[in-house]
Amino acid sequence: MIDDEKFLRGKIPMTKLEIRILTLAKAKLEKNSIIVDIGAGTGSITIEAAKICSNGKIFAIERNFEAVELIKRNFERFSVENAEIIHSEAPDGLKNLPNELDAAIIGGSGGKIEKILDVLGKKLKIGGRIVINAITLQTAAKSIEYFRSRGQNYDACQIQITRLEKIGKYDMSKALNPVWIISAEKI
Amino acid sequence: MIDDEKFLRGKIPMTKLEIRILTLAKAKLEKNSIIVDIGAGTGSITIEAAKICSNGKIFAIERNFEAVELIKRNFERFSVENAEIIHSEAPDGLKNLPNELDAAIIGGSGGKIEKILDVLGKKLKIGGRIVINAITLQTAAKSIEYFRSRGQNYDACQIQITRLEKIGKYDMSKALNPVWIISAEKI
Amino acid sequence: MIDDEKFLRGKIPMTKLEIRILTLAKAKLEKNSIIVDIGAGTGSITIEAAKICSNGKIFAIERNFEAVELIKRNFERFSVENAEIIHSEAPDGLKNLPNELDAAIIGGSGGKIEKILDVLGKKLKIGGRIVINAITLQTAAKSIEYFRSRGQNYDACQIQITRLEKIGKYDMSKALNPVWIISAEKI
Amino acid sequence: MIDDEKFLRGKIPMTKLEIRILTLAKAKLEKNSIIVDIGAGTGSITIEAAKICSNGKIFAIERNFEAVELIKRNFERFSVENAEIIHSEAPDGLKNLPNELDAAIIGGSGGKIEKILDVLGKKLKIGGRIVINAITLQTAAKSIEYFRSRGQNYDACQIQITRLEKIGKYDMSKALNPVWIISAEKI
Repeated sequence: MIDDEKFLRGKIPMTKLEIRILTLAKAKLEKNSIIVDIGAGTGSITIEAAKICSNGKIFAIERNFEAVELIKRNFERFSVENAEIIHSEAPDGLKNLPNELDAAIIGGSGGKIEKILDVLGKKLKIGGRIVINAITLQTAAKSIEYFRSRGQNYDACQIQITRLEKIGKYDMSKALNPVWIISAEKI
Repeated sequence: MIDDEKFLRGKIPMTKLEIRILTLAKAKLEKNSIIVDIGAGTGSITIEAAKICSNGKIFAIERNFEAVELIKRNFERFSVENAEIIHSEAPDGLKNLPNELDAAIIGGSGGKIEKILDVLGKKLKIGGRIVINAITLQTAAKSIEYFRSRGQNYDACQIQITRLEKIGKYDMSKALNPVWIISAEKI
Repeated sequence: MIDDEKFLRGKIPMTKLEIRILTLAKAKLEKNSIIVDIGAGTGSITIEAAKICSNGKIFAIERNFEAVELIKRNFERFSVENAEIIHSEAPDGLKNLPNELDAAIIGGSGGKIEKILDVLGKKLKIGGRIVINAITLQTAAKSIEYFRSRGQNYDACQIQITRLEKIGKYDMSKALNPVWIISAEKI
Repeated sequence: MIDDEKFLRGKIPMTKLEIRILTLAKAKLEKNSIIVDIGAGTGSITIEAAKICSNGKIFAIERNFEAVELIKRNFERFSVENAEIIHSEAPDGLKNLPNELDAAIIGGSGGKIEKILDVLGKKLKIGGRIVINAITLQTAAKSIEYFRSRGQNYDACQIQITRLEKIGKYDMSKALNPVWIISAEKI
């Protein structure tokens, strides 16, 4: 559990602490897990996953050059050695990954959520986990529709975190943007 | 119901549309109501109240000079004629108001919520309404404690608005900071 | 503004106070407005609208027999005289309504939101308002998709109300289910 | 991570999955941690903590007899062997615990939060974690006031989970009650 301000961020959006914790928990990672983090952004999810999967490996797919540079610097900062950056867009960047992945975390889908889920259907092992973080209504709705139309079970919730921020003698309610977390298991 | 972006704002915090609507509804304003808006900020609550209380009057108390200037300009913009600005801090600024006020809306209390409620206890008519918008845990807790310790009934809820913001083909969930609305009636 | 517990409810779901207030505000009702309340449920929206549109008329469409009986009794309880119940399903029940409606409020769509919006496109006057309350992701997504695909502007937000419920010396946070309010104007 | 419906519950309130995950993460538990779960309820937090602290120990304090019986049965169900129930009220039940505890999780405080925090100040080791789950405004405000008045740092947020519940072809937003999570470290 790494505090948000420990990560280098630049102008790249970052999955906030509480959402990271819940996302990682729903991915049911283990020490040996091999996983992919799609739309890795600042690398915050990848880095926390790398700590949990200390004998495993994390592939971080990110299309944005600036973000890729940031991930590299965050990897150094947190001495991450079991993660690899793939500077590419999903689902293209998924092609050369090993099969039988234990989990896929999708933080950004660039409007291609269905195609990404199609490819993940082949890349994940039976029982492998998919965890989607959606910040738009459309990505949430499309993800759920994808699972529904295939008769696949899923779990979905919306998380609204409000931080209490210290302002002198007061604690002010500051809302973070809500996120849908949709998770499913390959059967 | 005036859209947020219609008001001049500068750097002054503004009560957002949905919170304004609920706050005004809980104040149970009528055409002839005479009310006070404490911590008027941009004047957004005052201006909407002035439209509802077209035969009444609104007193807008505001201590910040910059905000007072903004309220003046917003009054002009919306042709408000039945409202008066009192450039002062509450509860001091309440002294010269007429007695038998129909309602008081408290958007900002400058750390003096109990003293303000003490004075309002005298200034409001029997059946007059108090509606507090609290953004800090302490103001919410103190307001409720004030009513509880006096055996006075109150109603309290927390409102979390998330706007769907259009970003290309997507609607992104953007949270506004939650607000507690605490209301009570003088008995 | 009528408190929730004043309405007869039975087992019929009811739009809660704060959502009613916001929904009615977004419908921009006036004294003479003629409107339709689709999926009227307990009649709570119809009844509050009837008070606002005292020289207008409200048509309440409801397909459930038990709910229709409840609406009748709530009409009596609140002495509503300018509202009419149409025991039918939408969009069928919309056919015989007058044209040039000022507003339509959709609290329930029975899975036919697009067809309802199609008919409303003909029944509403230019500038007439549509306000949809959606409690499912699919209804929210379909409504927005409907407006987007027609290049029609809309406004959407999600409202989460948490009531503070008095339990002895404590105020406990009790969440109501969040509702999306999607509104648009016929152009 | 154990799904809510796996626990025996009876009429005892239970900390829901997502809140359990965040609470346990903020307690920064390790394999050898020795911790106390105050107001253990159904034992859900204790049981998940017992899995994480497989070489450590969990003390579950609970005053309610019915809940104690439930915890026992849940311990059996999940084969928990490194946890002990203390049928007592806090802070009394804390007296005989070992000193140098690694963490304390407070799910219920029976109106005695300050006294509990006083005793924990002695029982925790330097760097030990306190994590409070508050569902009332008063417990949240008192906890924060406790830390503030002692110049002690703390972290506080409010978590609102909305589950998407499958109802036929729809996913309906069902809100769980929000919880404040307040955490601090003994210095």
